[in-house]
Amino acid sequence: MADHITNRAENYSQWYNDLVLKADLAEQSPVRGCMVIKPYGYAIWEKMQRILDDKFKATGVQNAYFPIFIPKSFFSKEAEHIAGFAKECAVVTHHRLMNDPEGKGVVVDPSAKLEEELVVRPTSETIIWSTYKNWITSWRDLPILCNQWANVVRWEMRTRLFLRTAEFLWQEGHTAHATRQEAEKETMQMVNVYADFARKYMAMPVIVGHKSPNERFAGALDTLTIEAMMQDGKALQAGTSHFLGQNFAKSFDVQYTDKEGKQQYVWATSWGVSTRLMGALIMAHGDDNGLVLPPALAPIHLVMVPIYKKDEEREAILAKMEEIKSQMQAKGYSVKIDDRDTLRPGYKFAEWELKGVPVRLAMGPRDLQNNTVELHRRDNLEKFTVGIDGIADKIVSLLDEIQDAIYNKALKFRDSRLEKCDNWEDFKEKIKQGKFLLCHWDGTEETEQKIKDETKATIRCIPVDTCVCEEEGTDIFSGKPSKARVVYAISY
Amino acid sequence: MADHITNRAENYSQWYNDLVLKADLAEQSPVRGCMVIKPYGYAIWEKMQRILDDKFKATGVQNAYFPIFIPKSFFSKEAEHIAGFAKECAVVTHHRLMNDPEGKGVVVDPSAKLEEELVVRPTSETIIWSTYKNWITSWRDLPILCNQWANVVRWEMRTRLFLRTAEFLWQEGHTAHATRQEAEKETMQMVNVYADFARKYMAMPVIVGHKSPNERFAGALDTLTIEAMMQDGKALQAGTSHFLGQNFAKSFDVQYTDKEGKQQYVWATSWGVSTRLMGALIMAHGDDNGLVLPPALAPIHLVMVPIYKKDEEREAILAKMEEIKSQMQAKGYSVKIDDRDTLRPGYKFAEWELKGVPVRLAMGPRDLQNNTVELHRRDNLEKFTVGIDGIADKIVSLLDEIQDAIYNKALKFRDSRLEKCDNWEDFKEKIKQGKFLLCHWDGTEETEQKIKDETKATIRCIPVDTCVCEEEGTDIFSGKPSKARVVYAISY
Repeated sequence: MADHITNRAENYSQWYNDLVLKADLAEQSPVRGCMVIKPYGYAIWEKMQRILDDKFKATGVQNAYFPIFIPKSFFSKEAEHIAGFAKECAVVTHHRLMNDPEGKGVVVDPSAKLEEELVVRPTSETIIWSTYKNWITSWRDLPILCNQWANVVRWEMRTRLFLRTAEFLWQEGHTAHATRQEAEKETMQMVNVYADFARKYMAMPVIVGHKSPNERFAGALDTLTIEAMMQDGKALQAGTSHFLGQNFAKSFDVQYTDKEGKQQYVWATSWGVSTRLMGALIMAHGDDNGLVLPPALAPIHLVMVPIYKKDEEREAILAKMEEIKSQMQAKGYSVKIDDRDTLRPGYKFAEWELKGVPVRLAMGPRDLQNNTVELHRRDNLEKFTVGIDGIADKIVSLLDEIQDAIYNKALKFRDSRLEKCDNWEDFKEKIKQGKFLLCHWDGTEETEQKIKDETKATIRCIPVDTCVCEEEGTDIFSGKPSKARVVYAISY
Repeated sequence: MADHITNRAENYSQWYNDLVLKADLAEQSPVRGCMVIKPYGYAIWEKMQRILDDKFKATGVQNAYFPIFIPKSFFSKEAEHIAGFAKECAVVTHHRLMNDPEGKGVVVDPSAKLEEELVVRPTSETIIWSTYKNWITSWRDLPILCNQWANVVRWEMRTRLFLRTAEFLWQEGHTAHATRQEAEKETMQMVNVYADFARKYMAMPVIVGHKSPNERFAGALDTLTIEAMMQDGKALQAGTSHFLGQNFAKSFDVQYTDKEGKQQYVWATSWGVSTRLMGALIMAHGDDNGLVLPPALAPIHLVMVPIYKKDEEREAILAKMEEIKSQMQAKGYSVKIDDRDTLRPGYKFAEWELKGVPVRLAMGPRDLQNNTVELHRRDNLEKFTVGIDGIADKIVSLLDEIQDAIYNKALKFRDSRLEKCDNWEDFKEKIKQGKFLLCHWDGTEETEQKIKDETKATIRCIPVDTCVCEEEGTDIFSGKPSKARVVYAISY
């Protein structure tokens, strides 16, 4: 057996940590709260990047790169933004180390103090809008649709691999528009790109909706989110798209001359997903044997394990496997033949299950004789024997089937725990059981806060898809009138 | 006319700065020494990344990600390394800002001082080898072949866009091997990957060679380099591959159990190229009209400019252009139709020349009648009229021709300025003219330093390809015996 991981039922949180470490996805680094993303984990992230990048570019977005450092004074320019971000961040104050004159190793050179401290970007609105000021003069310069793939740092106190780390990788799109309408359309377009990616590639059902004002991005007029349900029933915010109004344009004085020759402030959006998606992927589909990867994001689609006693069996089986490998690769799939000689097949099976490879193919002497192979599906752990003729086509359609099955399983799970709730006592009970509750809300921050204080549940979003929520009713907590239901859940 | 740029002959350095800015490649940011890479510049970098990444992976390398911060103490572990890197770097000392109690805006919170300062990585050997320690136990764990695409910071005092910036983007490969021989082979393999990339894709002839001990990477036993000649005759180090021996393994105590059960220190390499390649590309091929891009790295291969007076001409021409665009795109090429209505063709021509698009196609009413188009080559500025039948094939072979022509032009230029020199007075004269001089060297740092002090020339490398340099002789400066010629030049 490969390394043991804790059962989900026993301790879901420990299961997650075990899985991340033992499937070689990531680990803690010697630097507080910063992670090392290991090659297998990074390969999954690269697949996500490539797909998202293509989707962004298909909407006209171009990539660019802005500095990692932000002058401290920039944070004073947008009042809400600083309140939201400047508090916990890495601050660069000096630009030189030196040998300690007293021989105590290396110390900071006090003479190399910066005139103005630099903050390692927690997000890049400020540095980007200070740059856009020089790029924008006339309506002809708009829209600007830029994205960057970058690292950012937020000095989180409690960190968890992928879910919440001091440094993480992400993309941040920053767009500039002539009109409010166009910026709002962009905000919606990008959250839908995320939703489409989550559903089709991550096989993860998500609810698209608006954040309540309280949960908005610091400096935004509206935040759209995709919210996914993890297997413990908690919600995970997997991507957000912000309508920033003219806040940053005003803070950095970014105006354009419109077609009538009038000066106008520019309208802004920003939107991002991060390596947090890795955490979502793991928790949405993983089981007690380890990671379950949707084929669309699997670095290895098919692993083949030969079963043999004699050398000539080994050779004959490996020869067959090489044939299958070539056929699969020609169709664009990634294949691994696990021909390690020192390990038993059972050990290998467990290891590749831990790593979530969607299909396993085993072949022994009897298969060789019968012209068959044994296929194993990672998602439902089913095994079956099939004829070797047309095997590549069979595996390809199995992969498609698995992609759908993983999504449908997650959808069924989510739907079984998504329900309307109109009774406060029920609410308290059901929220503890890990449910998404569709409840009436009076629209006040006060009610939202009280519910959070009492139950830890927050408004995940005011849905714009998945459920029809606009209906008259009364707030589940305050009893005041409400015009729509919102999704409450306990979240990561 | 599009924006004017300074002629190379007038002021080469100003020409470079003008080109970078006016071709929309990059610009200075509000943060000292940090650049903004604009979408068009970034698109070229992305092409470089994609090609290099595929080449790395073809040798078995996998990508991973390590923290941006390095604990200060790590720099004390490898003595030479700290001398080389820790001096000028960004040091994080605090993790919080706060509102000034005296109302003077935002200040660093003195209570949020870190116990140990963190350095923003100038390179990642230390953090990576501290991680490899946990990954390596037995010979079965080796080799480890990791690469990361990342940003790094070196607090340079004099910065120039792409060539030398405080923050830059790069890739850094870090490999771990069981034997010296294997690590040395890897070092050579990766410098050859760089050389192949420079020649085939960047169309840039490079000399591969060893650095003299004095110019080695801090902590390396051997540094291999690719050295390119810019159009002012100066050398630009475009990529390096280091054999690190067991230095980092010893500093971080990374040992493995060999097949005989004996503990052995691990052997290391590291290798990298950066956004400096953008500077090399610009300076190797650009002319007084702007950027000249080799087709293999051009974000846009073909730009089409319609020439018309009447609306129906415009429509008919654009319809033809759309056809050509589809044909080119089907072959995998990127095409832009410049149908902007408010600009004259001459202005557009100049703009796309500035941006280095390899082929321009113009079509006017007479072309429409004659079933012809006018093609313009960016590399040699030649124009000619061709029939429209099979136009996509014609353009594709033109692009291939251009790729070769750019390389051959650069090679001819380099070879015309690469010569043996055995006389010190000649040396001083010729080095000023911007030549690569193949000279005998006695192997001492002393001689190297004296030549540098007197002429600014440095040993760029001890070539392993391009020239046969092993021959007996006497040092050009000291007159002492020498066993091989080295390349001297003034460098960026």
